[in-house]
Amino acid sequence: MKHTPHQYVHGHSDRESDRLRYQASKLAELLHHDTRYPPKSRVLEAACGVGAQTVILARNSPGAEFVSVDISAESLAAARDRVSHEGILNVTFRRADLYDLPFGPETFDHVFVCFLLEHLPDPILALNNLKRILRPKGIITVIEGDHGSALLYPDSPHAHRVIDCLVELQRQTGGNALIGRELWHLMMDAGFRNVTVSPRLVYSDESRPENVEGVKNIFIAMVDGVRETAIRQGLIDPGSWDEGIRDLHRTTEQGGTFCYTFFKAVGRKEG
Amino acid sequence: MKHTPHQYVHGHSDRESDRLRYQASKLAELLHHDTRYPPKSRVLEAACGVGAQTVILARNSPGAEFVSVDISAESLAAARDRVSHEGILNVTFRRADLYDLPFGPETFDHVFVCFLLEHLPDPILALNNLKRILRPKGIITVIEGDHGSALLYPDSPHAHRVIDCLVELQRQTGGNALIGRELWHLMMDAGFRNVTVSPRLVYSDESRPENVEGVKNIFIAMVDGVRETAIRQGLIDPGSWDEGIRDLHRTTEQGGTFCYTFFKAVGRKEG
Repeated sequence: MKHTPHQYVHGHSDRESDRLRYQASKLAELLHHDTRYPPKSRVLEAACGVGAQTVILARNSPGAEFVSVDISAESLAAARDRVSHEGILNVTFRRADLYDLPFGPETFDHVFVCFLLEHLPDPILALNNLKRILRPKGIITVIEGDHGSALLYPDSPHAHRVIDCLVELQRQTGGNALIGRELWHLMMDAGFRNVTVSPRLVYSDESRPENVEGVKNIFIAMVDGVRETAIRQGLIDPGSWDEGIRDLHRTTEQGGTFCYTFFKAVGRKEG
Repeated sequence: MKHTPHQYVHGHSDRESDRLRYQASKLAELLHHDTRYPPKSRVLEAACGVGAQTVILARNSPGAEFVSVDISAESLAAARDRVSHEGILNVTFRRADLYDLPFGPETFDHVFVCFLLEHLPDPILALNNLKRILRPKGIITVIEGDHGSALLYPDSPHAHRVIDCLVELQRQTGGNALIGRELWHLMMDAGFRNVTVSPRLVYSDESRPENVEGVKNIFIAMVDGVRETAIRQGLIDPGSWDEGIRDLHRTTEQGGTFCYTFFKAVGRKEG
């Protein structure tokens, strides 16, 4: 089955690339510290984008051999530059469509997917395609967020409204920004075994300035990135948008708190 | 200042006592594993209720001397029975009003409060009262939940409606069931120093049957405990209530997931 490239709700601007790299480095420890691949193992990183996670994965498992694929030639070029700039040698890049992967069955020992399923109309089909190229007993790791997990103080309906606009726009392009909580059933429905899901909560208050910066530069920047589209599509007016973003920023100021939960799932192919 | 005892939104039934003890034992590791008091230190457990946490605290710090207080003579009697039944000897019980504590200033090295502030109209006043009886550089530990953190799959507006009924009833008795996210500012506003807040997320899916039982016996039982009151007060009709509870149970069945986040804050009195 052949699909056209999925639309990426956050766009492909330089600002978005910066945001993705910032996100990957800040969240690296929380999300990736327990992902380590043995020497000589063959790992497919599906949808590597601009290489934000690639650098972290490859560094954490210097003996493993990574093949990182993406459908966007532009993103791949950026990923290649980045990895080369960092002097990392254990990654091969290849342009590939997730729905028509140029690999034989049972080619890889491991598959790694991060922030991808949330953008796909049929995540179970994607997981099945990835299972096909995984060897028997091979392991898949899937990481996704869930915008419904955002917990704000002070709470604000205006802030939730701008988050909901992003959720709606992602839904319109066939995605699901509330997918984190679904990883368990998606992995089971795709036929993986020994599935374990571990939620990873990020919390910020004034005593954690690094997390506060993360909320601003990752979450709020991501939401605000769809401002023009949301307004153009009539989901919200500019005044309400700005009010919502202001209230999101309020959670990063005096006395404010912010929580967000990522979900990491690991499963095994039958064998 | 003298206050009348606060109303306890969950009531004082045997079923509620069982629920509280179940809750305390299942959540003990997650919430209390990092609470340890040195030998000879004097610890006030404020609002010990039926002694659900008391047993755990006293066991984890066998050399510390606990004074556990509550305003309800009935709860205290149950707590005494429980602690005595367990052969625990380092706890003294005393009936006391949190707003008129029968202890001199700077009496205790540590104060421990769990699931209390959520029921109080003025949590900062309560924290200030507790600070008074804490010695300089003494440490306070506060644990609270936040019903807004409930993340459901399948998600359901009916389920959120019954949760919202509990939040509203608690609000009507002067409490705040969304207080977890506020611990940071409450501790700061009460003048504590070196405050750190650590969220503790509980997650359940079918691979974690113990957590699934916890969702049923702790969270859903707690919500369903206010059924009659919510209906009597006209917040919801019986059919909608039952639909909401059914949808909450659905999260504990095939493919379902449930998340809830507790918040633990630790702070120091100036000295």
